[in-house]
Amino acid sequence: MAAAIALSERGRGRTAPNPNVGCVIVKHGRVVGRGWTQPGGRPHAEAVALEQAGASALGATAYVTLEPCAHHGARGPACADLLVAARPARVVAAITDPDPRTAGQGFARLRAAGIAVTEGILVEPARRAMAGFLTRQTLGRPHVTLKLATSLDGKIALPSGESRWITGPEARAHAHLERARADAILVGRGTHDADTPRLDVRLPGLEDRAPARLLLSRSFAAQASAEHPALITEMLLGGGGGGYLVLSAPDQITALPRTDHVLVEGGAGVASSFLAADLVDRLLLYRAPILIGEGRAAIGDIGLGQLSEAHGRWALTDTRTFGIDPLEIYERRR
Amino acid sequence: MAAAIALSERGRGRTAPNPNVGCVIVKHGRVVGRGWTQPGGRPHAEAVALEQAGASALGATAYVTLEPCAHHGARGPACADLLVAARPARVVAAITDPDPRTAGQGFARLRAAGIAVTEGILVEPARRAMAGFLTRQTLGRPHVTLKLATSLDGKIALPSGESRWITGPEARAHAHLERARADAILVGRGTHDADTPRLDVRLPGLEDRAPARLLLSRSFAAQASAEHPALITEMLLGGGGGGYLVLSAPDQITALPRTDHVLVEGGAGVASSFLAADLVDRLLLYRAPILIGEGRAAIGDIGLGQLSEAHGRWALTDTRTFGIDPLEIYERRR
Ligand SMILES: NC(=O)c1ccc[n+]([C@@H]2O[C@H](COP(=O)([O-])OP(=O)(O)OC[C@H]3O[C@@H](n4cnc5c(N)ncnc54)[C@H](OP(=O)(O)O)[C@@H]3O)[C@@H](O)[C@H]2O)c1
Ligand SMILES: NC(=O)c1ccc[n+]([C@@H]2O[C@H](COP(=O)([O-])OP(=O)(O)OC[C@H]3O[C@@H](n4cnc5c(N)ncnc54)[C@H](OP(=O)(O)O)[C@@H]3O)[C@@H](O)[C@H]2O)c1
Repeated sequence: MAAAIALSERGRGRTAPNPNVGCVIVKHGRVVGRGWTQPGGRPHAEAVALEQAGASALGATAYVTLEPCAHHGARGPACADLLVAARPARVVAAITDPDPRTAGQGFARLRAAGIAVTEGILVEPARRAMAGFLTRQTLGRPHVTLKLATSLDGKIALPSGESRWITGPEARAHAHLERARADAILVGRGTHDADTPRLDVRLPGLEDRAPARLLLSRSFAAQASAEHPALITEMLLGGGGGGYLVLSAPDQITALPRTDHVLVEGGAGVASSFLAADLVDRLLLYRAPILIGEGRAAIGDIGLGQLSEAHGRWALTDTRTFGIDPLEIYERRR
Repeated sequence: MAAAIALSERGRGRTAPNPNVGCVIVKHGRVVGRGWTQPGGRPHAEAVALEQAGASALGATAYVTLEPCAHHGARGPACADLLVAARPARVVAAITDPDPRTAGQGFARLRAAGIAVTEGILVEPARRAMAGFLTRQTLGRPHVTLKLATSLDGKIALPSGESRWITGPEARAHAHLERARADAILVGRGTHDADTPRLDVRLPGLEDRAPARLLLSRSFAAQASAEHPALITEMLLGGGGGGYLVLSAPDQITALPRTDHVLVEGGAGVASSFLAADLVDRLLLYRAPILIGEGRAAIGDIGLGQLSEAHGRWALTDTRTFGIDPLEIYERRR
């Protein structure tokens, strides 16, 4: 299952609104098929792995990170039906598909065909890998990761604005990896004006990843929508050549098509707006072992009335170290 | 040696200007004597352990965290001479005594008497336990620990000043344990006025610890020294009943008698002053998994000209977790 979850990560950021699923088929202790949801959402992971396994799927064990879908789509048959036809002896799944068109019916169809089904294996890691799809299903909006890179005392720049660099090259490379896992990257107008960040994925082998670029700006949105009257407006701005979708408020991420994972890269104004709107599900806190003292704070007003409201919201779920910089990952407790 | 270092901690905060040493004597795999430097600095750890071991010390192995002293003091004989008289087969030591009156002569005297000597065992933990004595020997001032308790974004209070509580009861109890390890605790006038902290050790079994209470305040110092013209002046202030020594500048800690370990408890003004003067050797960073946003920063101006000056100063040496609050310990790289 861990291998299936790792495979599912390959599709992440490119399968929305479909879940990024991973599948591994094992027979007599040997892997006979591996698959992950392909860019655009089809073919599904199970279809790829079954195709690879061919006749070997008979009597094998199929590991899938999500319950196989039970609904026949315009672009292909239901994965539950594909599995029934291939006749593995057993299907092991991490989580049940919350999509009402499947929601247990995938498992039921397998069991009805005499295939043994085991559910609930490695639930939390699978949930994390498919966070976008699951958040869309449960909260009706994309999953939002907020990235902050700060000193030990929570600063992101000197009073002069000097901010290159807080963290080292290893931490910054990891931040690019996080870009590759997102359908869209968002920055604020302040960061756009100060840094004109390219917002691309500059990592060997991942250069083809092109998450959509989002800009949060009330003023640009007003200007852009005067030209094209639409809720979310495309705008061409300097820096990297590509266009931006301009949002006039954080909750406009909800309406974005094919966007289940959003990475918010800052700056402080945008981070505060997303936190104040309680739209952050995951916090990536890269920390450099330095003290800055007087300087620019990582976040500003997030609408806290009293200290007790701050408690109980965040749970530390992972820590890693890049060079000398620790990364802490917190998840919003809901 | 680890046991000897643990014993040495019992004396910490009460032996200055003597080092807090620990000693364990082992014979045929059994501990026959244990000692640590007693409050006031005498008797020394070795004297206590040898007294306990009696005739069993003959042929035993003595573990000491610091080279046995070679100088006969007014209050007792040199530990090297006591060991020579007791005739252990072997002495194992962590570090060489930098005091010029010993500095290798303790080991030499043991070797001359036919006792085997092993040096350099668990050097770093022993250094940490005796940080005060060693800093006094090398830098001519006490060892300074700065305690900060902050949110993930480096805040210590809401804009209103509300700061109870950032961290939970377990972290706060550990902070009291750190008080017990200090000869003196220092706060700023701002913290005194806001919180009138009792600065005592409220932990079962350690209530008798009474580190000196220091107050950093230019204004109080001026007032106090008008009454008693002295560099450092005692002053009676409300809160807990006891008096404070009032310092008019951070570097006055150097002149304090019997003070090798200072714990600086804040607030932000005092923390910044000590950091700006590069007088902080160890940073205790208690962190609560909360975001505050707009609020009071843990530290203010520390005199940083550019970002590059901030790098390379601090090394993470330990992390622990109290309840849900991580503690990070950083040491100044010199
Ligand atoms: N260390 C890090 O992790 C990091 C990351 C990124 C950036 N930075 C630094 O942060 C600095 C920029 O930060 P910043 O705070 O000045 O700017 P910012 O957060 O990038 O952008 C602020 C702007 O975003 C728009 N905005 C914010 N909240 C909004 C809301 N609720 N609805 C609509 N629009 C909203 C507004 O644009 P309009 O005024 O146009 O309406 C606002 O002026 C730069 O110096 C950059 O280098 C650091
Ligand atoms: N979360 C935590 O870890 C923590 C810990 C402690 C306190 N706090 C909070 O911090 C707040 C107080 O912080 P604060 O920054 O206002 O006050 P502070 O740091 O406690 O005290 C500032 C005062 O210290 C004196 N001072 C500072 N630097 C000096 C220097 N170089 N030489 C001589 N005197 C110096 C000055 O006193 P004079 O003006 O009298 O000359 C100055 O006004 C309180 O709200 C408290 O609750 C938080």
